[in-house]
Amino acid sequence: MSELRQNPATKEWVIIATERAKRPEDFPKTPSPPSAELPKFCPFCPGNEDSTPPEVLSYRKEGTEPNKSGWWIRVIRNRFAALTPDGSLERKELGFFRSMDGVGHHEVVIEMPEHHKSITTAERKQVEEIILAYRERYLALVEDPRVQLVIIFKNHGKAAGSSLEHPHSQIVATPIVPGRIRERIEAAIRHYDDHGACVYCEIMKEEKNEGKRIVLENDDFFVFEPFAPRSPFETWVLPKRHSSTFGQITIDEAKNLAAILQTTLKKVHSGLGNPDYNFVIHTAPKRDVNEEYYHWHIQIILRLSIPAGFEMGSGIYINVIPPEECARFLREID
Amino acid sequence: MSELRQNPATKEWVIIATERAKRPEDFPKTPSPPSAELPKFCPFCPGNEDSTPPEVLSYRKEGTEPNKSGWWIRVIRNRFAALTPDGSLERKELGFFRSMDGVGHHEVVIEMPEHHKSITTAERKQVEEIILAYRERYLALVEDPRVQLVIIFKNHGKAAGSSLEHPHSQIVATPIVPGRIRERIEAAIRHYDDHGACVYCEIMKEEKNEGKRIVLENDDFFVFEPFAPRSPFETWVLPKRHSSTFGQITIDEAKNLAAILQTTLKKVHSGLGNPDYNFVIHTAPKRDVNEEYYHWHIQIILRLSIPAGFEMGSGIYINVIPPEECARFLREID
Repeated sequence: MSELRQNPATKEWVIIATERAKRPEDFPKTPSPPSAELPKFCPFCPGNEDSTPPEVLSYRKEGTEPNKSGWWIRVIRNRFAALTPDGSLERKELGFFRSMDGVGHHEVVIEMPEHHKSITTAERKQVEEIILAYRERYLALVEDPRVQLVIIFKNHGKAAGSSLEHPHSQIVATPIVPGRIRERIEAAIRHYDDHGACVYCEIMKEEKNEGKRIVLENDDFFVFEPFAPRSPFETWVLPKRHSSTFGQITIDEAKNLAAILQTTLKKVHSGLGNPDYNFVIHTAPKRDVNEEYYHWHIQIILRLSIPAGFEMGSGIYINVIPPEECARFLREID
Repeated sequence: MSELRQNPATKEWVIIATERAKRPEDFPKTPSPPSAELPKFCPFCPGNEDSTPPEVLSYRKEGTEPNKSGWWIRVIRNRFAALTPDGSLERKELGFFRSMDGVGHHEVVIEMPEHHKSITTAERKQVEEIILAYRERYLALVEDPRVQLVIIFKNHGKAAGSSLEHPHSQIVATPIVPGRIRERIEAAIRHYDDHGACVYCEIMKEEKNEGKRIVLENDDFFVFEPFAPRSPFETWVLPKRHSSTFGQITIDEAKNLAAILQTTLKKVHSGLGNPDYNFVIHTAPKRDVNEEYYHWHIQIILRLSIPAGFEMGSGIYINVIPPEECARFLREID
């Protein structure tokens, strides 16, 4: 018989379907193979800076000019921006319907100059710089009074929606709080009202007690497979210090985040053969800074299975491997 | 500049990203090609009835025996059932977490005997029988007192999560009302409280007035591209008669649904080259039969794009073609 499990943070249910159970070891290792050759043209490679929109931030060698080579991190405006800085916040009532200008920001973080490296193969120092760039852009974007929420995410591999191979992540600043985020916040508020404690802090405490879903931890971060994961190897990275928005991360914490994120992704990479994945930094809307009830965190989702009609229709995900097995598998990888 | 649009039924926002706009005609026609040969073994083909779980319903020639050939529709229990009829409804408190038995039903509707036909190429009469089988199983499953919601859906093609080529759809009966469904219902209740009218009835009226997102209609059903679609060619099929649950469909309405669903899918098939798709029948939980605020409907989602980190993190979908263009494109296909 399968098991229905409820995510205590969102109250969403998942089905752990033991009827079609797999073991982590059974997963086909069919990753996006890194191509051996360089592509004909990559707009993110050094030397091609003038083929991208201008940079909004770069970490570069002293004496080099913006939008020229010499950088080790480069943040640019997305050429195909979903949201752009011009426009109005006014809601337009179109008869029965409502719309507004697509105002906001959409940036690309070019994570390193090397086309064929990645967060898993880069130097630790480089990963630290990526997290520090996320932090710096987060803090800059929330200064725009029209911005309500900043979402930082990475799409790795074609099945994860990435169209360019050069290692990069993206930042979107939205002028609204999306309904899905508001529901997550409201579920956390209801938990806080009932228990007087942050639900994420409580999950972390419980996971430490139970132990069987822990992947690893360091001084500032805790990595585990959640009790009710939507798909195999859904992995959460939680800061140990309660804070509601990503922008509150300190520079020392950013370094420890780089360390634990890299180690986690290395385990996934070597254990499952460089699978396609997304990660998302879930943070409270900017106005909810210093709230007791929400706790920013990272979710890593591997694209090993395809959500189909049932997931679309119900919001319930069917997961074929219990998280306890995934955690054991990841713990055992060096 | 892109445009943010709000779905009036769910209050969710989407981004219509004109910066990377495509025209419907530009979509690559890269469908799952129907294989020319029969597979080595198909458990759903006539003659192989004993290799599936026993049937719970079949429409078959008089004088033929259950679980033998002679059927034109066959409904079986899913061999890899996500939910099964045994088990308890009791919530188990596991320390901080909550789980329950995976109790419910998971059935497969084998839509026709012919391996290489589909809803688009079958006789109209056969499609009517499929809808009547959905109706009959819906009405049977809600008799189980543990069942709260019945979800009927179809996964067509690999990108839509289908693993077997033989035309089939699925029915899942859940012992809970999923959070996502509850939110949809609550949004509809709030609309009803504000306006004294069903939001779906109002959307239909508005779409008829505006006209530019209509695909087609018949006596009982209305097909259109919604104002805030999550992806290109998201298509809704609404019954004209207000009713909250799918089980309320009459036999005559079922025939008109078969007609309009087949015509719609034929347009999609010939206009876009047999793309992979899902459809889901969205219905109120069974206890909400005869409610004024909710209106059952079908959503068809084409798997032409991959939701990535931004969609996962925000619940906001980026859509590269305005629905007005998709509706025009579908209307113009014979």
